[in-house]
Amino acid sequence: MTGKAEGELQSTEESKAMEERLKKQLAFALEIDKEKNVFRQTHLSGHGRQENDAEHAWHMAIMAYLLREYANEEVDIAKVMLMCLIHDIVEIDAGDTYAYDEENLKTQKAREDAAKERIFSILPEDQKAEMTALFDEFEAYETAEARFAHSLDNLQPLLLNNSNEGGDWKEHRVTAEAVYGRQRKTRLGSEKLFEVTDRIIRENIRKGNLRE
Amino acid sequence: MTGKAEGELQSTEESKAMEERLKKQLAFALEIDKEKNVFRQTHLSGHGRQENDAEHAWHMAIMAYLLREYANEEVDIAKVMLMCLIHDIVEIDAGDTYAYDEENLKTQKAREDAAKERIFSILPEDQKAEMTALFDEFEAYETAEARFAHSLDNLQPLLLNNSNEGGDWKEHRVTAEAVYGRQRKTRLGSEKLFEVTDRIIRENIRKGNLRE
Repeated sequence: MTGKAEGELQSTEESKAMEERLKKQLAFALEIDKEKNVFRQTHLSGHGRQENDAEHAWHMAIMAYLLREYANEEVDIAKVMLMCLIHDIVEIDAGDTYAYDEENLKTQKAREDAAKERIFSILPEDQKAEMTALFDEFEAYETAEARFAHSLDNLQPLLLNNSNEGGDWKEHRVTAEAVYGRQRKTRLGSEKLFEVTDRIIRENIRKGNLRE
Repeated sequence: MTGKAEGELQSTEESKAMEERLKKQLAFALEIDKEKNVFRQTHLSGHGRQENDAEHAWHMAIMAYLLREYANEEVDIAKVMLMCLIHDIVEIDAGDTYAYDEENLKTQKAREDAAKERIFSILPEDQKAEMTALFDEFEAYETAEARFAHSLDNLQPLLLNNSNEGGDWKEHRVTAEAVYGRQRKTRLGSEKLFEVTDRIIRENIRKGNLRE
């Protein structure tokens, strides 16, 4: 009898813990909706409006899957996709830092660390740890997955900007040297995608879209 | 000597085929950028603007990963995520069909079939076949992955709409019966997420956000 009572008690507590867990997960799901309001410097194809972080992440994840054959090393593509999907969540608090904005780049890490702590803490502890580790892995550039995810993080806006005759570069008076500085790292994830990148940059220099 | 010449010829042809393949993949990547301009009836949290398909897909894919423990059956989560990411690509041509728009629902399948053929044909043949099969699998509701992906396709806008006091339902004068008609299927993918759904619907009926 006491056995049954204890069992019931335990099951009530388990069920309460499960409800608590689910509540946290749903709160996180609602929180990240805000990423759709973080706008980037890149414009959509067809000379469209500025792109937001959620759209960028979606685009990168699909590209990662379809272009996975070009990764330098074998990658766990599910992990790459998830990394692509979550890599900009910190920008909900930290804002988007333009790749060629020297001033803001200096404070980027501190701003993103605070954001990472606040936002991932909404999740249950185990998922907070998992998402934090995945984010840190992306940032560290040390695994095949992180390197390939970064190749897509670079290639996706390049494709859009190229389709718009380099409008984003022209607007910010970006030099070819600065673009190579950022895009060079694409090579760490994919030699083949760097070839594409290099071809696009050269073409845009030739057309006068990028200053030499 | 002829051996070497043949080898070179072959390698030139292989490289040409590879370039052709990559060109198609990049053309597809650029094409799907248009999904960011397909707007849905759902509004972002915080009484925001309407959500677009790319944002919706991004949100669903992350939710699928974080809520995978609630799937009724074991799922290949990478497949679920990819399904989430690509399931609305056809709407680039076919447009978004609101879940409670009876007239447009009648022609939805024909419009989406034509779109599927045009858009996935931009990819190399093998990837066209793969993406088409994945889309068809989602639509058919027959695998554990498809059922769970549909649960997220239902839950994601419900969460946003609930956070906005049911504004989307009020705007379209949707009845609780219609919402249950659609949301009932969440149960096929996840009993637990259907419990959440049911609780949210009841609460919105009680608050007068949904007509009984």
